[in-house]
Amino acid sequence: MAVFRLVLEYDGAAFAGWQVQPQVATVQGALEAAIAKVAGCRVRVVGAGRTDAGVHAEGQVASACIETPLGAERLRLALNGVLPPGVAVVEASEAAATFHARRDARGKRYRYAIWNGAIRSPLRAARAWCLQRPLDLSAMRAAATAFVGTHDFASFQTAGSDVITTERTLDRLDILGAAGGEIILAFEGSGFLRHMVRNLTGTLVEVGSGRRSASEMPALLAARDRRRAGRTAPAHGLTLEWVRYGASVG
Amino acid sequence: MAVFRLVLEYDGAAFAGWQVQPQVATVQGALEAAIAKVAGCRVRVVGAGRTDAGVHAEGQVASACIETPLGAERLRLALNGVLPPGVAVVEASEAAATFHARRDARGKRYRYAIWNGAIRSPLRAARAWCLQRPLDLSAMRAAATAFVGTHDFASFQTAGSDVITTERTLDRLDILGAAGGEIILAFEGSGFLRHMVRNLTGTLVEVGSGRRSASEMPALLAARDRRRAGRTAPAHGLTLEWVRYGASVG
Repeated sequence: MAVFRLVLEYDGAAFAGWQVQPQVATVQGALEAAIAKVAGCRVRVVGAGRTDAGVHAEGQVASACIETPLGAERLRLALNGVLPPGVAVVEASEAAATFHARRDARGKRYRYAIWNGAIRSPLRAARAWCLQRPLDLSAMRAAATAFVGTHDFASFQTAGSDVITTERTLDRLDILGAAGGEIILAFEGSGFLRHMVRNLTGTLVEVGSGRRSASEMPALLAARDRRRAGRTAPAHGLTLEWVRYGASVG
Repeated sequence: MAVFRLVLEYDGAAFAGWQVQPQVATVQGALEAAIAKVAGCRVRVVGAGRTDAGVHAEGQVASACIETPLGAERLRLALNGVLPPGVAVVEASEAAATFHARRDARGKRYRYAIWNGAIRSPLRAARAWCLQRPLDLSAMRAAATAFVGTHDFASFQTAGSDVITTERTLDRLDILGAAGGEIILAFEGSGFLRHMVRNLTGTLVEVGSGRRSASEMPALLAARDRRRAGRTAPAHGLTLEWVRYGASVG
């Protein structure tokens, strides 16, 4: 038995999210089925983040305890041979016996893509939120400063999660690009609440389109009330870029 | 009545190609239906290039004679309001009464995308031909020089077209990027035969993977025999970037 660390790339459009559910294709379900085929055992795979339906990943990390004579690279190749086209294992390594992809994660980076061209773009629509009115990026950047650091993000958590605390640390929130073109919102932090990136994005877009002022943001955080924040940005603009671990694990 | 020049962006995955066919969604069919809704008239739309099923476009050009009180920009907005999400009119202008998008086209640029990473990439798979063995780009560039200029491209034409001559001028064939990553083949020319870009790409990939030598290319052209050239590269890696017209039209 060995614990493997698997780095995954997937197209969110091909799955009903990370987490196993009956009757629908999920990333966790596809990976568990592939391991069963390759190693002949049913195991539970743990993901660093339980991405929602439609959310993409370039560097999701999963851990699984697998009994196999294969080394990590042979296992990776075998899994890619049986996984559906929407997901691939891009890296595999043997990890410490105690490695747990979610519990041991120290940081993550998410990227939210917006296409802000005046004309809708069929070639960009699958991976970006298309918003045709020009956004005020300086107002969005001013609003974003309120979120960087350690805060209680209860106002930006969608109901239905069972977390102990809603305090999280956002290390960076960079807004790149230009109004009228491609805009990237890059979020780096120790951990994220359910829909937190999408709720922050939806709120920042309301600031960018003039429906809210950047100066409201501290009060919005302090309210700890989901109803005060903006709409949840659509899933298909979001990509989990990477997950970071401490030096001793992973 | 006015002749309009419409520049179109579309996602090839959403259509069974440009040309109207019964029972299936085509770009031409979608545009003709949208014009019927907006202007109340059934017209025939002409496309600069009849792209195959799966081929994308950033700058396809279409011409249509439409009786409408709307100016070009109002027409564009109205068409985008009724077109399906896979296609959009990105520019519209009134053209000379004699303008014909195909006959008047003076040049076109196509881009063929290859993902040459050692690991398949689910996020790139929809828009690039994924080839995992590293390609020899210098061999491909050496082979490509044989195709630049005016040649009889009969060896690279898929059967079933009714062209008068198979002579075409290829102004540029640039191979950008690096083995092991994203590779772009950019084709600029006065006109292209059926599947010509995809057949040239398939042949160049055979050179890059060592199955053919670059020095065979002149003989391959001279043979004027489709069976001598390589396989047809898949449609989903190909994008029509733009169409150029003379100063007097369009």
